[in-house]
Amino acid sequence: VTDYYTIRWNDGVVRMIDQRLLPQEEIYRDYYTHQEVAQAIHTMVIRGAPAIGAAAGFGMALMAMNSQAQSIEEMVSDLHQAATVLKAARPTAVNLTWALERIISVVNENLHENLPDLINIVITTAQHIADEDVIVNQMIGQVGNVLVPDGANIIHHCNTGALATVGYGTALGVIRCAHESGKQVHVYVDETRPRLQGARLTSWELLKLGVPHTVIVDGASGHIMRTKKIDLCLVGCDRIAANGDVANKIGTYNLAIAANFHHVPFYSVGPTSTLDLSTSYGDEIPIEERDAGEVACIGEQKIIPNQAKVYNPAFDITPAKLITGIITEKGIAKPPYLKSLRKITQVYGEENE
Amino acid sequence: VTDYYTIRWNDGVVRMIDQRLLPQEEIYRDYYTHQEVAQAIHTMVIRGAPAIGAAAGFGMALMAMNSQAQSIEEMVSDLHQAATVLKAARPTAVNLTWALERIISVVNENLHENLPDLINIVITTAQHIADEDVIVNQMIGQVGNVLVPDGANIIHHCNTGALATVGYGTALGVIRCAHESGKQVHVYVDETRPRLQGARLTSWELLKLGVPHTVIVDGASGHIMRTKKIDLCLVGCDRIAANGDVANKIGTYNLAIAANFHHVPFYSVGPTSTLDLSTSYGDEIPIEERDAGEVACIGEQKIIPNQAKVYNPAFDITPAKLITGIITEKGIAKPPYLKSLRKITQVYGEENE
Repeated sequence: VTDYYTIRWNDGVVRMIDQRLLPQEEIYRDYYTHQEVAQAIHTMVIRGAPAIGAAAGFGMALMAMNSQAQSIEEMVSDLHQAATVLKAARPTAVNLTWALERIISVVNENLHENLPDLINIVITTAQHIADEDVIVNQMIGQVGNVLVPDGANIIHHCNTGALATVGYGTALGVIRCAHESGKQVHVYVDETRPRLQGARLTSWELLKLGVPHTVIVDGASGHIMRTKKIDLCLVGCDRIAANGDVANKIGTYNLAIAANFHHVPFYSVGPTSTLDLSTSYGDEIPIEERDAGEVACIGEQKIIPNQAKVYNPAFDITPAKLITGIITEKGIAKPPYLKSLRKITQVYGEENE
Repeated sequence: VTDYYTIRWNDGVVRMIDQRLLPQEEIYRDYYTHQEVAQAIHTMVIRGAPAIGAAAGFGMALMAMNSQAQSIEEMVSDLHQAATVLKAARPTAVNLTWALERIISVVNENLHENLPDLINIVITTAQHIADEDVIVNQMIGQVGNVLVPDGANIIHHCNTGALATVGYGTALGVIRCAHESGKQVHVYVDETRPRLQGARLTSWELLKLGVPHTVIVDGASGHIMRTKKIDLCLVGCDRIAANGDVANKIGTYNLAIAANFHHVPFYSVGPTSTLDLSTSYGDEIPIEERDAGEVACIGEQKIIPNQAKVYNPAFDITPAKLITGIITEKGIAKPPYLKSLRKITQVYGEENE
């Protein structure tokens, strides 16, 4: 069903679909340097926490290939420089940092290799990060599917589909898995202002998957919970703090408050690479503030008066107490999260590596 | 400060500013028949509960002037026909029905007059409805101002300014009164999807008034309540049921839930003509569902895939339990509303007329 892809490594070129143009145009663009990849992340050619993690990995691979380094030391220095540039592209999603640290860590373990081998190791690791993401998302879909009743009516915020990842999707992956397992599901798609990722991207992906859905404005979610039977809310996440507070697309918090008020289960969905146990709680997570034009203009059209001010936080923090569970590839963490999130990583030994 | 007006009767022509074109263009249009006025209400050239009440009154005046009736009976029949057309223009705001019933009631009290006098009575009543609205709004501003602390940070939804009324405004009238009384106030302006009345109209009006403000997406209100000091939320209303449930622009309910969660006082503001004591509770209020294009397109630009479905309720119901108080020209009603709303009308004798 998916005749499109988010990002691919093509023999030294990183190709991405330009998500700013969807659903009107399906255009793929090629990137040849880590600076170009950083710019693509910053300008949101590619977005979604897992997807920008993979993009950052490929950015490192481009640096490894393009570097003029004559020694391992010079190469390590170049890679650190590339990591700094890529990390600065967007501050909130931790997957970006996670991917960069994973590559740096593999490099540090292989400083004894010769230069061509080290370059290959960087490229291979970047490809692994991307390949794993698809498998991890499919696992997330299976894990989350148990929570979706047949006939479910789901509210979803932003885009968390194949486009937000390397493939399959996180919260939308759960919906996809439920649909593919034969359940009847219907999705209310928050349009997700200001950038309309729900209206533009999620609706486009759900059409391709054949999942029935209806687009609503973000402000209608409470009205829909009050007047219709809603079974659950599923959203993605850009960073999960150790206590279970979650950073995600602006508007997630309002949806969580409305779900709480209506006793509708509210789940955050993401790979464990979104977990940041070094962040104690949500208010430690940097919230990216983006350009006023995202709110003030739609396409070419200016919708507010010229002198009017705009405040445009790209993310918000949903406190752990509003989250029914956090769905990961390693299971569903439930409150108290300080314990359950740590357990999810420990059981599989990551803490002891 | 207000070098613009919403609606005026100019010697047999109804002139309105075309609110669909603001803030880019300030264009006034002339309407010569009640059908044209009904169409202007339906297509939202004019919007806002008090404003469409006044427009309906002037629509009746146009019918009275243009009617070919040769007798009082024929004129009454024509006026009833015009009322039916005007009432059908929009279903949720009760002010429209209120204005029509007020004119019909005055006509019924004056069936003994001759035809030219009856026509004059209709026109005069329509003008009274419009003139009274401005005075009533100024009273609302005074009443509500006591609730606004100096230095207040206020969240406001949709547009409730002079443009939503004949002049001065309701919730925005309270803000205007606070500003004009020398208080420092700052307004977070919900952009109010889908029609962006906040971004387009409220921001334009606050700039003219010199009131500091910042436009936000609707989904950011909770984040702002969590991270900044917000003193109160002020919104308008399209119909108030006897129990205090309030119909207002879609997104109001989400804002009320978020305010409740953060213990931020939440006030509905409107003239007593918005009170509908014949409606027991909110779920009896008809919720207008508008065209999918309001969500699917912005200006000429289609933002969702062609086959995607949209659900576009124009209003929602905020239950009385989430409303701190209802600010009217006759005082602030507080819970329990069944008692306080009835008292507000009774004290001034309307119940006993």
